Order: sequence, then C-alpha cells, then structure tokens
Amino acid sequence: MCDDRRVGRITQRRRVTRITLGHAPSERADVLAVEEPLEIRVGGLPLAITMRTPGSDVELAAGFLVSEGVIARGEQFSAARYCVDATAEDRATGTVSNTYNVLDVALAPGVPAPDPSLARTFFTTSSCGLCGKDSIEAVRTSSQHPVADDPLVVSAQLLTTLPDRLREQQAVFEKTGGLHAAALVDGATGELLVLREDVGRHNAVDKVVGWALMNDRLPLTGTVLMVSGRASFELTQKASMAGIPMLAAVSAPSSLAVELAEELGMTLVGFLRGESMVVYTGIDRIEDAQLALPQEELVP
Amino acid sequence: MCDDRRVGRITQRRRVTRITLGHAPSERADVLAVEEPLEIRVGGLPLAITMRTPGSDVELAAGFLVSEGVIARGEQFSAARYCVDATAEDRATGTVSNTYNVLDVALAPGVPAPDPSLARTFFTTSSCGLCGKDSIEAVRTSSQHPVADDPLVVSAQLLTTLPDRLREQQAVFEKTGGLHAAALVDGATGELLVLREDVGRHNAVDKVVGWALMNDRLPLTGTVLMVSGRASFELTQKASMAGIPMLAAVSAPSSLAVELAEELGMTLVGFLRGESMVVYTGIDRIEDAQLALPQEELVP
Repeated sequence: MCDDRRVGRITQRRRVTRITLGHAPSERADVLAVEEPLEIRVGGLPLAITMRTPGSDVELAAGFLVSEGVIARGEQFSAARYCVDATAEDRATGTVSNTYNVLDVALAPGVPAPDPSLARTFFTTSSCGLCGKDSIEAVRTSSQHPVADDPLVVSAQLLTTLPDRLREQQAVFEKTGGLHAAALVDGATGELLVLREDVGRHNAVDKVVGWALMNDRLPLTGTVLMVSGRASFELTQKASMAGIPMLAAVSAPSSLAVELAEELGMTLVGFLRGESMVVYTGIDRIEDAQLALPQEELVP
Repeated sequence: MCDDRRVGRITQRRRVTRITLGHAPSERADVLAVEEPLEIRVGGLPLAITMRTPGSDVELAAGFLVSEGVIARGEQFSAARYCVDATAEDRATGTVSNTYNVLDVALAPGVPAPDPSLARTFFTTSSCGLCGKDSIEAVRTSSQHPVADDPLVVSAQLLTTLPDRLREQQAVFEKTGGLHAAALVDGATGELLVLREDVGRHNAVDKVVGWALMNDRLPLTGTVLMVSGRASFELTQKASMAGIPMLAAVSAPSSLAVELAEELGMTLVGFLRGESMVVYTGIDRIEDAQLALPQEELVP
C-alpha cells in the first residue's frame, strides 16, 4: 500500500504549472517540503500521531515526550526503534512495509509509562506500515462530500484578487500581526461569503466550515477556500470534509497536501501572490490563462 | 481562578518595550491576538480542547465536528450552549465562572455520538470554568525545569543576528518555501547549538528539545530558543518543559503565550526583525540597549 520512503527524505520534486496574468502558463519542476505521519509509541503502545517532515524522528519523539511531561532528563530515555514487523500482507507478497513512520520508544527502567488517557486513537491500525497513503485513504473514505466532479471553473484573474481582499478584511491582523485567516469565495460570482480569523489556521478553517453548516450550505460545491500561510494535509482534509473543490494558499503546500488534493480531485493553488500563482492539482478548474493575455498579443 | 472574559474579546492591550539598536528602549502599548482554550463537548462529554481566538465559537465547534466526520449536514446539528453550571467554589463565593470557554453541542436525534476513542483527556476537570489561567497552571505544575531564576543575560545586538542565522541554515526552506524552523542558541557564547526544520513549528521545537535530551543537556539553562513565525501558548509551553529561559520569535506572540511567559519568569521577545524587537516579558535578561548606542553618541 505504501511507497518505500527513506529516512531523511525531506523534499519531493513535482511538475507544476505557474500562471502569471498576461503570460502563457508554464510547466516547471517544483520542490515540496515532505509531510508524512509519524506514529509515536511508548513501550509498544500508540501514544500520538503527528504530521511531520521526516528526519530527526528520534529527537522528535523524545522532545514530544518532554513536552508532554513524560520524561525530563536524558537518563529516562532508553532507546527508540522504527517498527519493522512485517504485516500479513507483506509476508504474502514478500515485501517489507517499513515506512519509517512508526517509532517505538523504550523508557528507562522505573520511568512510569504515560497516562493511557493521553493516548488518542486514530484511524491507524496496529500495522507498522503507516504512511501518507493511509492518511489519504482515511480522508477519502470518511468524507461524505466528494469534490472530484464539481464543475467549478474560476478565472486566474479572480484568484489573484483574493489575497488583497483577505487582507483588507483581516481587521484583527492589522492590529496584532498575529492572526491567520480563512475565507470562502463563491466561484461563480466572486463574492466573499465569509471570513474568519484565529491564532490557529485550522481553527479559522473550522469556523468557516461551521458557518456553512449553520447556514445549511454543506456541501460547499462551487466554492474556493482561501487561506493565509501554507496548505497542509490537515487544511486540505478539512476542505475535503466540507466538499470544497478548490483550496488556494498564500504560501507553499506540503507534499501530502498535494497528494491528497490529487487523490480527491481537488484543485490546489499555492504561492498566490501579486499576479501569479502555482497550480499543483486540478488545473482544469482554472480558466485558460491565455485569456489573460494582453489584447495586443492576441493579434496575429 | 479566572478573569471574566466576554465572548468576542479577540484582542488584548499590553505594555511592552520596543528595542531598536542605536536607540533608547521605548515603552508603548501593544495589541495582542487573544488565545484561550475552548473545550468542545458533545452531549455533555468532553471531546477536544483547542487553543483558539474567542469569537464564532459555535461555528468553530460545528466545523470541528464536520472535519472529524461526526456530522456532515446542517440538520445533524441541533444546538450549542456554553456550559454555565456554577462550580462548588462559585456557589461558596457567590460568583459565576462562565468563561465562555466550554461549549456543549447537542446533535440532532438519531445522529450517532462521536466515537469515545476520539476524545482525548486533558488536564481539565469537569468544571465549566476552563480558562487561560488553568492552562498556565497545568504547565507551571508539570514542568520539572523552572526558568524564573535562570541568570541568562544576552545583548540585544546578539538577538538581532538570529533571524539571518536561522534563515542561512534553513536549507530546505530555501528550496520549498514551506518549512518552519527552530534553533537553540547558547546565550553565553552566541553559538547556534542546533537547528531543526519541519512542516509543523511544534515539531521543529520538539526536535530541538529531543536533541537536547539525547545529548543530556536538559534542562536547557542559559539558552535562547528562536522560532520562525509566531509564539503561541504551545511553543511557550514546550520551551518551559525543557527549561529554556528565553523564547524569541520572528512574528507576534499570542496573549496566552505572553501570560504564560510572565507567570513562569521566561523572557519572551517578538517581532525580532532587522535591528529591532519587542520585549513582552523578562526584559532583565536583555543587556541594557543603551550599550548598543553608536560610540559617538556616548561621547559627552
């Protein structure tokens, strides 16, 4: 089910399309920051899953245990190893499913195990093969609002107006410099339906989705979700659960955000700044950027 | 235990000190984005706590339930109300502890309650009075590495060099534009001890703290933790658990990050850019900015 992923693989190359108003779209290679789930176990028992960039995983698990108050000094940490038990499927096919995404920490003798109530049960199974595709599969099967067939089409020109409109309405950001924003735009009319701010980007998106639910507008067919900052797996998941066919971000998406969007048939736009943007998936929903060419260039 | 906080209180004013190299420090009022915990309950049972900016809380809870796959359409949501049952302490003192931070959602008849395994037990009690001070108290009592008496003193000049040094070493950010960074600096020598990158800022900090634990350097007395982006309650908590006496961020801190730092005796610096910074707490650890005055200005 999973690709083999080496430890320390922290970037991923991908073909993307860059659109700049007044110019022909251009294909190019882009480099994405890799995002993959890491399941942290203690003494064999799952404690948490975090979406992280692979590399320094043992440090990540150790630091997480310090942050959670489980350990506070080096001698309380004994060892950590990636979970490498082959699954039944592996044994049948002769493959090994070590994705380097499940890490088991052994505490030193005498150090109390974390309170079991700290642990949160996720979609994951007891298999050692946790990987990005599992995370994608969990979203794909749990969303009641598929977006792949959403006929939304918007112009690149409309998209380029969104960051300024987001910023104009970010009243609190202006004062504090400290708030993220998420906004929902009607793809047909360009109307900004709702904007919410929060110290947490995930909260701003939840507020937008909650607004839609309270106003009986789910699924959010035909809309664009615009977010300040980056596009993570989590934000893409939230858009999917609400049936939003297009996610546009001011900054970069992660590898897993792009993979999830592709799997779901969602359009994902990043680096939406000034008159340009990078389209990672679902470019069919963006009106031919040729139309944005200056008139004189269209004359033979 | 808690201040009375109105719904929709999304900014907070505070006296801060602005330091710019070559100028005398100046006191001024700053506006912070408010961060407070929200406990989301369903049918009276705690499901999750999120650190959020107050306002649109019902939308936030509803959207969270959509994201988690609990509900998918408006008719599945019945009502939401803030938990207002007076605690025993309230009844004794005649006060009401509604902090507007505990919200109970009623699902429509026939909608299955969320899987109890989704719920995560936090430090909170069954009281309705959850507030920022509870969150602070939980960190204060759980950290084994108090920072209040850490004798660290660093120059403002050293601090202003950190953002560039962070960026220089952010190899992956250069390529992807998509990674956060956290770095640990020795306050006495100015040496950059370790830098870690991740799609999640909390992960980058956990990796740094884990590095320290693996190298037997906890508690991290005499160090400065520098982070890209903003300073949240969560990052301040992580610094506290590792015994780090100074947290410096490129962007704004939240209200609760500042309150936690003040309670712990940690120095918190924000907007560390170019030759200036804003000091929110613990200014005693920053060498008199007068020393940064150009030599000629010191001549009588």
